[in-house]
Amino acid sequence: MTFASIIGIGQTDVREHWQTSIRHLAWYAIEAALDDAQVSKVDALYVGNMLAGQFSRQNHLGALIADFAGMRGIEAVTVEAADASGGAALRQAVLAVKSGLVQTALVVGVEKMTDQTGAPVTAGLASMLDADHEAMHGATPAAIAALMMRRYLHEYGVTVADFAGFSVNAHANGVDNPMGMFQNRLKAERFADAPPVATPVSLFDAAPYADGAAAVIVTDHERALDMAPQPVRVAGSALATDTLALHDRRDPLWLRAAALSAQAALAQAAVSLADIDLFELHDSFTILAALSLEAAGFAERGQGWQLARDGEIGRNGRVPISTFGGLKARGNPIGATGVYQIVEVARQLRGQAGACQIPSARVGMAQNLGGSGGTAVTHILAIDE
Amino acid sequence: MTFASIIGIGQTDVREHWQTSIRHLAWYAIEAALDDAQVSKVDALYVGNMLAGQFSRQNHLGALIADFAGMRGIEAVTVEAADASGGAALRQAVLAVKSGLVQTALVVGVEKMTDQTGAPVTAGLASMLDADHEAMHGATPAAIAALMMRRYLHEYGVTVADFAGFSVNAHANGVDNPMGMFQNRLKAERFADAPPVATPVSLFDAAPYADGAAAVIVTDHERALDMAPQPVRVAGSALATDTLALHDRRDPLWLRAAALSAQAALAQAAVSLADIDLFELHDSFTILAALSLEAAGFAERGQGWQLARDGEIGRNGRVPISTFGGLKARGNPIGATGVYQIVEVARQLRGQAGACQIPSARVGMAQNLGGSGGTAVTHILAIDE
Repeated sequence: MTFASIIGIGQTDVREHWQTSIRHLAWYAIEAALDDAQVSKVDALYVGNMLAGQFSRQNHLGALIADFAGMRGIEAVTVEAADASGGAALRQAVLAVKSGLVQTALVVGVEKMTDQTGAPVTAGLASMLDADHEAMHGATPAAIAALMMRRYLHEYGVTVADFAGFSVNAHANGVDNPMGMFQNRLKAERFADAPPVATPVSLFDAAPYADGAAAVIVTDHERALDMAPQPVRVAGSALATDTLALHDRRDPLWLRAAALSAQAALAQAAVSLADIDLFELHDSFTILAALSLEAAGFAERGQGWQLARDGEIGRNGRVPISTFGGLKARGNPIGATGVYQIVEVARQLRGQAGACQIPSARVGMAQNLGGSGGTAVTHILAIDE
Repeated sequence: MTFASIIGIGQTDVREHWQTSIRHLAWYAIEAALDDAQVSKVDALYVGNMLAGQFSRQNHLGALIADFAGMRGIEAVTVEAADASGGAALRQAVLAVKSGLVQTALVVGVEKMTDQTGAPVTAGLASMLDADHEAMHGATPAAIAALMMRRYLHEYGVTVADFAGFSVNAHANGVDNPMGMFQNRLKAERFADAPPVATPVSLFDAAPYADGAAAVIVTDHERALDMAPQPVRVAGSALATDTLALHDRRDPLWLRAAALSAQAALAQAAVSLADIDLFELHDSFTILAALSLEAAGFAERGQGWQLARDGEIGRNGRVPISTFGGLKARGNPIGATGVYQIVEVARQLRGQAGACQIPSARVGMAQNLGGSGGTAVTHILAIDE
């Protein structure tokens, strides 16, 4: 069976785009990806988006964006899985290309969170949780992350300060990413004093929500070899789920969907963790970064935070993460985030990461989570010598 | 390449389900489909839904419904394309099965429109239109249908009463469908006196919005032959798009996406219109029924209404449509509608349509539209002798 391969990537900068509509945001990323791939048309479009219906009163984005991008008529749909929507959209594109019914697919993740006219932002974000059993009682994503983090502190006898390394690393890398939201360094000693968001989650544990769009173009690998100087193979692709409500999980500190999807993607790619040169994980909260490292198997249970303490997640560490700043410094434009991760891994594998470059990166992993881990999408990307 | 085939179908009745949550609605349809297929587990779930985020403040339905249906962990996402979401979800399932990466897929279309706590219903429905250029100015789906219908009356010199046949037929068939919303006959002479919704669209031109869920289970055809006594082959599957905004179309009376997707699906299935024994079209408004018949090629431009006048759309006509009542009498639970169409065609092909049965039906076509035709999904289903 053929591989799907990435032949084009594009992104907008991540920030508050007050004067840019959702269709324009999507188009800017698509335009960049089409330019990069040197193609003008694709067969299908998969839009990763969660909140346009609630925030912009605009559903039906597939047809809208296809038309706005000059591709009126093509197959186009929206794929939604909370903040894993971007990764899930790529997953659909991979399935479509592998089916043989779609030759070239465009994936765009897009989210417009500022200048919104619909639901309050907090109510919209809470719709990624279990509405009847979590959000109904006032829970927000930050509040659920706080429950997980407090439990982690309790179970493993660590302190809030032990999570500092994740944000320090993200910001240190983000300094070199002009497309990211923040380019400022963060000092570890300031971490513990940050204003609380939902104790023990503080401002420096939580990734900022933002506007943004990222796009990738996927085609079958044989065609990709003809079209692109450096096609990036989608060597593994898997999506798994867990309960939406944290309280429904047997173990609230085990990201089961993350583990399942990582195992499946690694098996498909026939690589082991030792082969992974970088891991773009879903650090929407520092606790999720720690738990993602544990679920994937990079750390033992309760020890994910030690990789941050020991510098193992840095650019020269054993498991570089958040190499362009991650969700924490690049920003978290919900439905676009998973596609940003893919664009960033592709840049690393092509050797086009500039000052963010991980030396000799050949195999990268991206993992996009929805909610508190109710959905996890893992992709393994690889570049041939 | 293998076909995807349907091995199980299920549905809830379509009505106002005031006391049933969206997850329960979905489960009732899934339970029926699992029972029908005699399977307890699938590899992936594709949820067709448009409005849960806005109406129930519940996104992330894939993981939620997978868990609630006892399938925690499986791949699961939501697919959205306005009221074509159900058909689009089946399309993703077909691609997934054909990719070889998913063996058995469950599709559930579900929509919960009553007892909603979020956006007003009209604002939610208008989000299927172009938010910036249609809904912004107060347009609703009915208002856009009214523009199309008025143009049709003008172009072809017909009258409102000439559309009566569509609704009379839908209600006549709906009498025999206990799962539908309405089981009352409609007299042609009452049609022209119906209260206006958006002139010239009256109450009897417009399908009622409702709650409901429908589900189908799809697997590769070889496996289906082993598992099901009467597997229904998905012989053709195609999704196409058009502009969201009606005013962006060169010809507002030509459903280009409907034509493109019908042509592609017919070509895949290697059948012609003469082979189609029934056509479940998207009669959310009578004008769309007429235009769908024309776009598919069953009638010349401007003559779709004549098929209704001449009785050709009845159970014994040349092109039976709305055989269980269509959107008009069965009801239109937006994101579920496309899956109801598939369930109904499958029942016809299996010879399980009861009093709604089309004699000797072997090949059926279902076409699900989003908005005023911005998305069209066409499936051709067939049963072997």
